[in-house]
Amino acid sequence: MANYLRQFQLPQPYTFYRGGYINQGILAYETWGELNEQGNNAILLLTGLSADSHAASHSSNDTAGWWEFMIGTNKAINTKKWFVICASSLGSCKGSTGPCSQNPTTGNPYRFNFPDLTVEDIAHSAVLLCQSLGISQLHTVIGPSMGGMTALALILNHPNYTRHLIHIASGMTSPPFSTAIRSLQREAILKDVNFNQGYYSVDSWPEEGMKFARKIGMLSYRSAREWNERFPRSLKKVPDQAFGIEFPVESYLEHHANRFVHQFDPISYLYLSRSMDWFNGHSYAAKGQNPLIQKGLETALVVGAHTDLLFPTDLQETIHQLLLGSGCDSHLTITDSIQGHDAFLVDKTTFSTLIEKQLERTSQ
Amino acid sequence: MANYLRQFQLPQPYTFYRGGYINQGILAYETWGELNEQGNNAILLLTGLSADSHAASHSSNDTAGWWEFMIGTNKAINTKKWFVICASSLGSCKGSTGPCSQNPTTGNPYRFNFPDLTVEDIAHSAVLLCQSLGISQLHTVIGPSMGGMTALALILNHPNYTRHLIHIASGMTSPPFSTAIRSLQREAILKDVNFNQGYYSVDSWPEEGMKFARKIGMLSYRSAREWNERFPRSLKKVPDQAFGIEFPVESYLEHHANRFVHQFDPISYLYLSRSMDWFNGHSYAAKGQNPLIQKGLETALVVGAHTDLLFPTDLQETIHQLLLGSGCDSHLTITDSIQGHDAFLVDKTTFSTLIEKQLERTSQ
Repeated sequence: MANYLRQFQLPQPYTFYRGGYINQGILAYETWGELNEQGNNAILLLTGLSADSHAASHSSNDTAGWWEFMIGTNKAINTKKWFVICASSLGSCKGSTGPCSQNPTTGNPYRFNFPDLTVEDIAHSAVLLCQSLGISQLHTVIGPSMGGMTALALILNHPNYTRHLIHIASGMTSPPFSTAIRSLQREAILKDVNFNQGYYSVDSWPEEGMKFARKIGMLSYRSAREWNERFPRSLKKVPDQAFGIEFPVESYLEHHANRFVHQFDPISYLYLSRSMDWFNGHSYAAKGQNPLIQKGLETALVVGAHTDLLFPTDLQETIHQLLLGSGCDSHLTITDSIQGHDAFLVDKTTFSTLIEKQLERTSQ
Repeated sequence: MANYLRQFQLPQPYTFYRGGYINQGILAYETWGELNEQGNNAILLLTGLSADSHAASHSSNDTAGWWEFMIGTNKAINTKKWFVICASSLGSCKGSTGPCSQNPTTGNPYRFNFPDLTVEDIAHSAVLLCQSLGISQLHTVIGPSMGGMTALALILNHPNYTRHLIHIASGMTSPPFSTAIRSLQREAILKDVNFNQGYYSVDSWPEEGMKFARKIGMLSYRSAREWNERFPRSLKKVPDQAFGIEFPVESYLEHHANRFVHQFDPISYLYLSRSMDWFNGHSYAAKGQNPLIQKGLETALVVGAHTDLLFPTDLQETIHQLLLGSGCDSHLTITDSIQGHDAFLVDKTTFSTLIEKQLERTSQ
């Protein structure tokens, strides 16, 4: 546990959406800014699959966070004005309780005995955290990628807990193409001999499976158009062995896979990945009914990118229409960012401007 | 060797484009229709990576071929009029000499001692085959997918050998995104312990690697839009084991992977796959020059599909412009087929009509 992380003790037993429970569960979280006296300036940031609570630097940790350009003094999410909370997702391996945590009952890691994890569990635990901080209602929940599904799960299960939504690069459900990509990532991990049905250790880590899973994922994070610009054909090198690395894009995948392999716990990855394929926001209403009706949402900004393969823009259009149909003042923006699914992490100007404007229009 | 396959003995030694040679090399091929007296009705069909010479049924084999709807009496490629030749690619494992063939010098399979294979070699060997059949000039060369690259290699290296081109779902070069997909497919095969650096056998076949390679490939063969229509969310089943098959799209991938695993030789797959990443039609001319100039091409039909992830439509636009710039009467058609890269195999009406019209306009 890094000493800049704060800990929230979940109630115990903490029961999961699909059944099962854990004791002594904790969420690791970080905050920026201060909750004002009225308690109405809180923004909950829900993360993508592999991100952690360290969204931006702060006084206890000056390491840049994964949304450093977005959060801070006088940035788009201005921490002089807003109180921002970001937790490592329940089930992840970044300080919050997950499958690789020790089960207090047995003294061993949960591994596959960790309860089935859904984005509803991630959302619910985050709401409990916010309530523990004295927040009776959020001003805004922001969710990119998996966080967008988590935000929807929060709204569906906790009506009126947030007034506004910023939903980025996500959907009410996962298209089969995205499920296929995640399924192959999980298969790569599960089939690594070192995975050993979850009984791996630091010394026998499923490195190859984790690397391969990352490479498959990277097919979906950026875009073919961006890669056309980044990887000149002419830089291919002579490989050291038959069918070794030869093309620039292969070096790129290998580099990122190597960076990732020990940064994430393999079983945590499986659990979080599956939670995205399980989520179905449409299932909260009868067929033909609008599941987002009467959830108390005042305004929303829904953002997608034309180049996003993982959550194509028809998904954001669907959410936008459901929100409008629910009486929410929803704005839809489909960006021309060429960075695909990752655009919210890379296209700083576009995303800073969008989020700054949405917060401005809702802070009257 | 299936008894309906005809064999063409390559000259020996047969030298490869990047060096190296083989002896006793053969191409397995099939033909439909008859070469006319003037010898001007020959169509050479160059295949995709995993296809073989059996493009359609004929009197010696009534099994449906991979382009059954396209080739035959009174079909778009009317075999009452045209003499059609299709060979299994040099390097493949469908009767033509490839890495899994026996090296006559050693009596053992070539494995990685097979010379480096390029689409130029596939093109050149096919030209020699056609010449052996008495064809001094082709009326048309047709190439989908890898076959499109092979067709370009033929035109670039054998000017004036074909009068017309039908180029489908391919490009002058492979975009980094497509190279990445193929690289991961190769990696899946190479890393299977049963692959054993090429020393696998029927009893220790790299099944898992081949299956996984096929699944990765299938991400790119159809389209997310088609899968949205095919795979309803609601059909998910309870898996027999933790993280087992649960979603319809997972069953689909597993089914197709199982069908493929013993249909193709693993080293052949590696060689053919890499040949596509090596091909660069632009390298045939100095920067800024048009490599397709003065190749004697009279007309061309260039076809792409908006939903093709593997060979996006900007590639077909590039070829079309180069062809126009070379003085060739090129037509470009980008179809609305939702079947992605595989559209030419599935969208029968669209592709039959396109090819029939192109053959009509060139048969005056």
